[in-house]
Amino acid sequence: MINLENSVGIVETKFFTIDEELELESGEKFGPVQVAYETYGALNENKDNAILLLHALTGDAHAAGYNSENDRKPGWWDDMVGSGKAFDTDKYFVISSNMLGGCSGTTGPCSINPQTGKPYGLSFPVITIEDAVKVQKKLVDFLGVKKLIVAGGSMGGMQALEWSITHSDMVDAVIIIASTSRLTAQGIAFNAVGRNAILSDPYFNNGDYYDSDNQPEKGLSIARMIGHITYLCEESMHSKFGRRFKNEIDGKEHPNFDFGIDFQVESYLAHQGQTFVDRFDANSYLYITKAVDYFDLAHKHESLENAFKKTNARFLVISFTSDWLFPTSQSKEIVQALIKAGRDVSFCEIESPCGHDAFLLEFETQTKIVKSFLSKSFGGANV
Amino acid sequence: MINLENSVGIVETKFFTIDEELELESGEKFGPVQVAYETYGALNENKDNAILLLHALTGDAHAAGYNSENDRKPGWWDDMVGSGKAFDTDKYFVISSNMLGGCSGTTGPCSINPQTGKPYGLSFPVITIEDAVKVQKKLVDFLGVKKLIVAGGSMGGMQALEWSITHSDMVDAVIIIASTSRLTAQGIAFNAVGRNAILSDPYFNNGDYYDSDNQPEKGLSIARMIGHITYLCEESMHSKFGRRFKNEIDGKEHPNFDFGIDFQVESYLAHQGQTFVDRFDANSYLYITKAVDYFDLAHKHESLENAFKKTNARFLVISFTSDWLFPTSQSKEIVQALIKAGRDVSFCEIESPCGHDAFLLEFETQTKIVKSFLSKSFGGANV
Repeated sequence: MINLENSVGIVETKFFTIDEELELESGEKFGPVQVAYETYGALNENKDNAILLLHALTGDAHAAGYNSENDRKPGWWDDMVGSGKAFDTDKYFVISSNMLGGCSGTTGPCSINPQTGKPYGLSFPVITIEDAVKVQKKLVDFLGVKKLIVAGGSMGGMQALEWSITHSDMVDAVIIIASTSRLTAQGIAFNAVGRNAILSDPYFNNGDYYDSDNQPEKGLSIARMIGHITYLCEESMHSKFGRRFKNEIDGKEHPNFDFGIDFQVESYLAHQGQTFVDRFDANSYLYITKAVDYFDLAHKHESLENAFKKTNARFLVISFTSDWLFPTSQSKEIVQALIKAGRDVSFCEIESPCGHDAFLLEFETQTKIVKSFLSKSFGGANV
Repeated sequence: MINLENSVGIVETKFFTIDEELELESGEKFGPVQVAYETYGALNENKDNAILLLHALTGDAHAAGYNSENDRKPGWWDDMVGSGKAFDTDKYFVISSNMLGGCSGTTGPCSINPQTGKPYGLSFPVITIEDAVKVQKKLVDFLGVKKLIVAGGSMGGMQALEWSITHSDMVDAVIIIASTSRLTAQGIAFNAVGRNAILSDPYFNNGDYYDSDNQPEKGLSIARMIGHITYLCEESMHSKFGRRFKNEIDGKEHPNFDFGIDFQVESYLAHQGQTFVDRFDANSYLYITKAVDYFDLAHKHESLENAFKKTNARFLVISFTSDWLFPTSQSKEIVQALIKAGRDVSFCEIESPCGHDAFLLEFETQTKIVKSFLSKSFGGANV
């Protein structure tokens, strides 16, 4: 049984369709787009108490609460969204949507192309963070929102940054957690190897596998394992698994002397890989990691400072000490450019052993910081 | 044409066969074992001027010089081995051999099992660093060496440590470069994902692919790409590739908006993957990474200090500032345990932007340090 106490309760994932074609960054036109979204709390009369949450690489619209009585676990940011929580649903109208290109209700490569009656597969256009934001803007307009706060961790932070620049007239405050304004070469490399594993899977079949008995599970699983190494830090891997073996003989840990699951960390990775293929689409993984690779504010706006001169919001930037995927140095780059651009920015580095995953785990400290930051938003007036 | 100046010249890879069976760490007995090796310089009358070089994960016996006039490049540590170089062939008898389980002349999974007339494949026994050292000891005895110095980078350093403990009566000095006394959970994880990519390749065929038209090239290539990300550091990847694209349109770098080679770092990884499958055996990759994963001196000897109490040599430990695979902290762990064990140890952290690969690249600084260290070896007498 689910525990509805301290929860937004049972929530329904809703759908909104953008009927017209969107012009994508690549130059292609694409549509229609269905958007899966959830909302928590209520929009006020002035329609200016909205917070748009933006999910990370493999997230979805279901940020908080439960979708049914039978749900085994709540949404991905349930600790942060609800009555009295960081994103307080007593005060705010909180919106979360699945990203364009995803596989959890928003149009993506696994969706049916209305022109062919078959899934898009690799005929889906290559998309960018900017394209994802275009879709979110349509949703926010549809919901009648006039002013909003944008907040996200990891890839969600990239989208929040993009929102603050492209829709500076609407965005009052921006919360960027464990994120970056562009991937490093190393970050691109990790994504590229993951994509390579998917593309190399014989069942990938050039992205056309939806009707097949065989799915590119091994490739997708390897991509996820690589991801997980980068989401944890060395320290957290050490404390979770160390060099312990999985098997015991007479109560003593024992190496297998074969190539099966041997160390506990191998068991963890295999489990992460397997549970991922049960919930995520290999094509979506290609498209979304590519969008992340392409995101580069400094390149697009000539400098990060120039990019932020186009914003009109207050910023909160949070990083975690043990995050080596998007380390504190990259958050500081954002902060320094914001300062140079004359923007109001708060920065906090949280001490945590949880690596990049900390933004999903360290909710107590994040709650304090986010609440304090939000208490100054909207002039403290309308909420 | 090759340039023989400042080179040990044309060298021949020789072969030595251990006819008796070896008892392996796993308890299995295995033999015969053929060992591919090269030597540079001459053994002195007292047979105590030998240096045994120990190669890294995918190295071979060919450490220096050229194997033929047509060789395009010299051995893997050519900058360090030769007349007047760090490992000075005017003074020392330098030995290098391919590791047990390898695929460059020493018996490994691609070798013919004399009992079946077919390659061993996965019927090859799982080996350890200790087993590799057992084989090297047979070679060194065969060559008539009485005393020696052992030196190696990365996995080679692990073997050098093992030599110093197991054959403390023979080892006068030990040089450990960019190495560790045991992998972290993260290190095991990277190896495990690489093995997973090989095992998942449909052409792997349970290790029985030698007679097939199709080899597990994609899996091996992915394993190598993952490896290369860990051999370089973020800084060196940034300076080599940054976020530059491979393709240009009208002289301007341009994203492809597809899933082919797009960023320059992707081109680099693809190239590294491809050249690796041309020279390395997928089964050997499984066996050797597993040997590396298993190596754990502290666990075997109850503590690192206890392990080093069994040694009788002087130690030189070198690390590199940008090496995040085997970082300086792990070298310091070795140094501190050596000090606690009352051993004579010199330690040097070299400032380098080259990541883990630095031990193959930063030869000028290494040469100075190694030469200074070696000048005090053998009482400065017999060499």
